Amino acid sequence: MGPHPAVAAIRLAVRRVLHDVLTEHGHPTPSRTDRVARLRQAATPACASAASRNERVPLPAAPAPLVLVACSGGADSMALASALAFEARKLSVRAGGVTVDHGLQDGSALRAAEVAARLALMGLDPVEAITVRVGRDGGPEAAARDARYAALDEAAERHGAAAVLLGHTRDDQAETVLLGLARGSGIRSLSGMAAVSGEYGRYRRPFLQLDRQTARKACMVQSLPVWDDPHNTDPAYTRSRLRHEGLPALEKALGKGVVEALARTAQLSRDDADALDTWAADADASVRDESGELECAKLYALPPAVRRRVLRRAVIEAGAPAGSLFARHVEEVDRLITAWRGQGAINLPGRVEARRQSGRLVIRQG
Amino acid sequence: MGPHPAVAAIRLAVRRVLHDVLTEHGHPTPSRTDRVARLRQAATPACASAASRNERVPLPAAPAPLVLVACSGGADSMALASALAFEARKLSVRAGGVTVDHGLQDGSALRAAEVAARLALMGLDPVEAITVRVGRDGGPEAAARDARYAALDEAAERHGAAAVLLGHTRDDQAETVLLGLARGSGIRSLSGMAAVSGEYGRYRRPFLQLDRQTARKACMVQSLPVWDDPHNTDPAYTRSRLRHEGLPALEKALGKGVVEALARTAQLSRDDADALDTWAADADASVRDESGELECAKLYALPPAVRRRVLRRAVIEAGAPAGSLFARHVEEVDRLITAWRGQGAINLPGRVEARRQSGRLVIRQG
Repeated sequence: MGPHPAVAAIRLAVRRVLHDVLTEHGHPTPSRTDRVARLRQAATPACASAASRNERVPLPAAPAPLVLVACSGGADSMALASALAFEARKLSVRAGGVTVDHGLQDGSALRAAEVAARLALMGLDPVEAITVRVGRDGGPEAAARDARYAALDEAAERHGAAAVLLGHTRDDQAETVLLGLARGSGIRSLSGMAAVSGEYGRYRRPFLQLDRQTARKACMVQSLPVWDDPHNTDPAYTRSRLRHEGLPALEKALGKGVVEALARTAQLSRDDADALDTWAADADASVRDESGELECAKLYALPPAVRRRVLRRAVIEAGAPAGSLFARHVEEVDRLITAWRGQGAINLPGRVEARRQSGRLVIRQG
Repeated sequence: MGPHPAVAAIRLAVRRVLHDVLTEHGHPTPSRTDRVARLRQAATPACASAASRNERVPLPAAPAPLVLVACSGGADSMALASALAFEARKLSVRAGGVTVDHGLQDGSALRAAEVAARLALMGLDPVEAITVRVGRDGGPEAAARDARYAALDEAAERHGAAAVLLGHTRDDQAETVLLGLARGSGIRSLSGMAAVSGEYGRYRRPFLQLDRQTARKACMVQSLPVWDDPHNTDPAYTRSRLRHEGLPALEKALGKGVVEALARTAQLSRDDADALDTWAADADASVRDESGELECAKLYALPPAVRRRVLRRAVIEAGAPAGSLFARHVEEVDRLITAWRGQGAINLPGRVEARRQSGRLVIRQG
């Protein structure tokens, strides 16, 4: 008898990511090697070069890469840790775990120690509980996230980890898309979380296509105790309100497929945003004169979606912090091109100024 | 004393659209002419050619163009009709109105006659109540919409109208974006309704940046009686559930700016989708061999967002109905390029079949 379907699902999701990590680190797994070989046989030139990029030559005795799981003790990341422990045994992967104590709740140190003990019991090694100091920048959620990722980065580097797995599910992705939608700042903010992100593609999210219910079920049938973070149900947090009120109401109005539709929107938007960023980067050189100034006539001739991205790049390059530069700022700069009626300089975040001068768009930090 | 701010807002919105219509029909209004002249002075070559595209040479004695308003008797379109009646008097525009009786509710014919009488009282001429037969294709909402637009098209052509104004507000736009989001089929479906649409850009939506509350207020202060369509509050309709439950819950979770953010997302998504469609149209020729077949290697080299659009175009060109072709269909075809492992032909809507054959992607109707 095989494992419960929920357990099979979480293991498959982790197995796929481990195959990718092994392949990238010079340990192509049998199934991946097969795929590469088959790709090669059928390959057109472009496919062949892509296949060979994926398959690096294995080192003679490369040590088994270390993969860490970031585990809060909640259902998603406990399920992830259990699947990593199981799959790592079958592949040449060392598996470890990290739990972060944000120090924001009473007893959080004790809980972190308990989570670490559970991870060790699963056979993960090394296992660490790291205590961080959460600052205040950008609000409580952003500050906790910044502190957590800094700790995970540090741990990954100290242990020489090839990857850090994160337990975000399709439901988290749907929430992230809605949070991005509320910013109204375009398709990049609709593209949610990437399956691979961070420096050197360190962070991997194996559960991004899996629903939260499956992770929870997998914990249950494996008798894994899970910890429910009270923050997750605290209506003081936007994400919590979204999870418990906004998204259910939206599902009631639009039907059960909403979470899946939002996750699909994330993927499509990400690809679209990537393509348009590439276009804007290519267009950048073509709209400048010999001295590197932006020419209004050439900017005018670009499609609006590309022009606004070229302008955004230029404003950030001049020193505006990306996080403070909103769609409405870029729109105002755009009007210097599309609705020119002699308006004055536009003030932008980071003391950057944009003005139109003799058919050139001049963007400078003051 | 000027008009109430809500009345001023609806009139300004209509005035802007009437200026556009007049300019396009050879009657540049003073304010538009000024703008064009100023644009010209400051103009770079690209700006100049764009300006002259906008400003056609006026005919010696072109008759004043006719602009129709489509009016259901609800607050949005009654406000629109009142603003059109007011502004048309000040410009060389003839203003008329059309109301459509869908015959779906008891007393609908009487109500349509009442609405027509009100439009005539406002000074609109011609005014018509048109009775349509609503079919069943695509569900009750889509069938009613199809019948309505067919009647409006016919009326516009019969009267030689230059434009038909529609009363959709920013709130309608937000709902449309969420409906598109629920389809999960990418950024085109997030782009909502266009400010200008239909054959020859016939349909104009002056209130797309205006909230529903402003339209309602404008009716109140002008003592215009409005009719509340019971369909708008009937929970059997998706849009009604969204309006009265989904969107308020989302606003509660994410804050009051959600409607505005959704409307801004619509505009940004539309521009992005337009740019990517242009790219895909340009890329199309570059990925075909001498006999016009799609080459897999060249397709593989395109950015995923562009490749999927090229594939979508090709499948529709082969005979698949656009409305039945979903993102998941295109993804399956895409896997013939990106994850080729000898899979068989893919069946698509409209008896279209896609298969990979000797490095070519063959898409045919069976």
